Amino acid sequence: MAREISEEKHLKKMKAVKEKQDQKIAAAKEERGVSILLAGPGKGKSSSAFGMLARSLGHGHKVAVVQFLKGAMSTGEEKFFNAHENVDWFTMGDGFTWETQNRQKDIDSAQKAWDKAAELMADEQYNLVILDEITYMFKYEYLELQPTLDALKNRPKDMNVVLTGRGPKQELIDAVDTYSMILAEKHAFKDGVKAQAGIEW
Amino acid sequence: MAREISEEKHLKKMKAVKEKQDQKIAAAKEERGVSILLAGPGKGKSSSAFGMLARSLGHGHKVAVVQFLKGAMSTGEEKFFNAHENVDWFTMGDGFTWETQNRQKDIDSAQKAWDKAAELMADEQYNLVILDEITYMFKYEYLELQPTLDALKNRPKDMNVVLTGRGPKQELIDAVDTYSMILAEKHAFKDGVKAQAGIEW
Repeated sequence: MAREISEEKHLKKMKAVKEKQDQKIAAAKEERGVSILLAGPGKGKSSSAFGMLARSLGHGHKVAVVQFLKGAMSTGEEKFFNAHENVDWFTMGDGFTWETQNRQKDIDSAQKAWDKAAELMADEQYNLVILDEITYMFKYEYLELQPTLDALKNRPKDMNVVLTGRGPKQELIDAVDTYSMILAEKHAFKDGVKAQAGIEW
Repeated sequence: MAREISEEKHLKKMKAVKEKQDQKIAAAKEERGVSILLAGPGKGKSSSAFGMLARSLGHGHKVAVVQFLKGAMSTGEEKFFNAHENVDWFTMGDGFTWETQNRQKDIDSAQKAWDKAAELMADEQYNLVILDEITYMFKYEYLELQPTLDALKNRPKDMNVVLTGRGPKQELIDAVDTYSMILAEKHAFKDGVKAQAGIEW
């Protein structure tokens, strides 16, 4: 079956694809850092942020991570990246909020995490700052959104920022350059398979 | 505003969330590797796969990667992970197919990449195998789907497999445990911002 498409037809199609792709590349002229929001119920928000972290390190960049929710449990990503000389890693939360069952403690943790994030986002040495699961802070009203919008706007020109979590506010969606919505079409966990080390944490 | 929600109301809500979460965790009893498909037009497919790679390494696992499309260009992820002793990395493609403009050469590359992937998926030492951008091989009819479905079915019980790329076939969707569809709600590149090192490659 695979061999039935003619070489000419393929060449014609691929030429058109290449032309379109080259046009897009030529049109993309602005050189600056981007802000990326990864939201939605599907698997792949934090893991995508950590993939970009690896990419950045491959280019010799300096990276900072603030984890707003996870923290009580030691994760694979923390174990792996925290040891790297170009990574500054901060896990400020006391675990998931439904584990702590203490709203004031959560608010204090969130504020502490945000203070650190604001400091990092003003620091030119970082090429990438990851604000992992920060959207929950706004969703649960642990943090005001405005300081984050201001920090995004006033950050160093070449800094990339990645924000993750479910239920992002519309103002945050409006503020970022790239917004991927990740849908959970299927999820192994829902079907009774245990969360796997290396996959979910 | 953040402080106006009462402690009792919060506690009640969080108790309900915790109960639901604990029930889900108790229900998830099956201990085995999972297969994950990351598809859709949005940013975050490959980067999510590489985030899981980092997670796996954090747990001391052994990982293999086959990149079916990228290869001509040296990427941040390759530079970063390829040096790691627990990673076996194979970039089999000659670059994007619209760059090669040669269907037979692409088919040969795809077949070579698949032969390697099949070998890796039968090897118990790997906890995670990533088949990056493999869906295009089926979409462009460079590869038959059935050998991949067979390899998924017959792989070692604890092996996790992550497949990425756009336009997955329905039979592949049916075969995997987890399927995240990543929508591009906004994309900086489309708005004229250049692809950034550490973000897109």
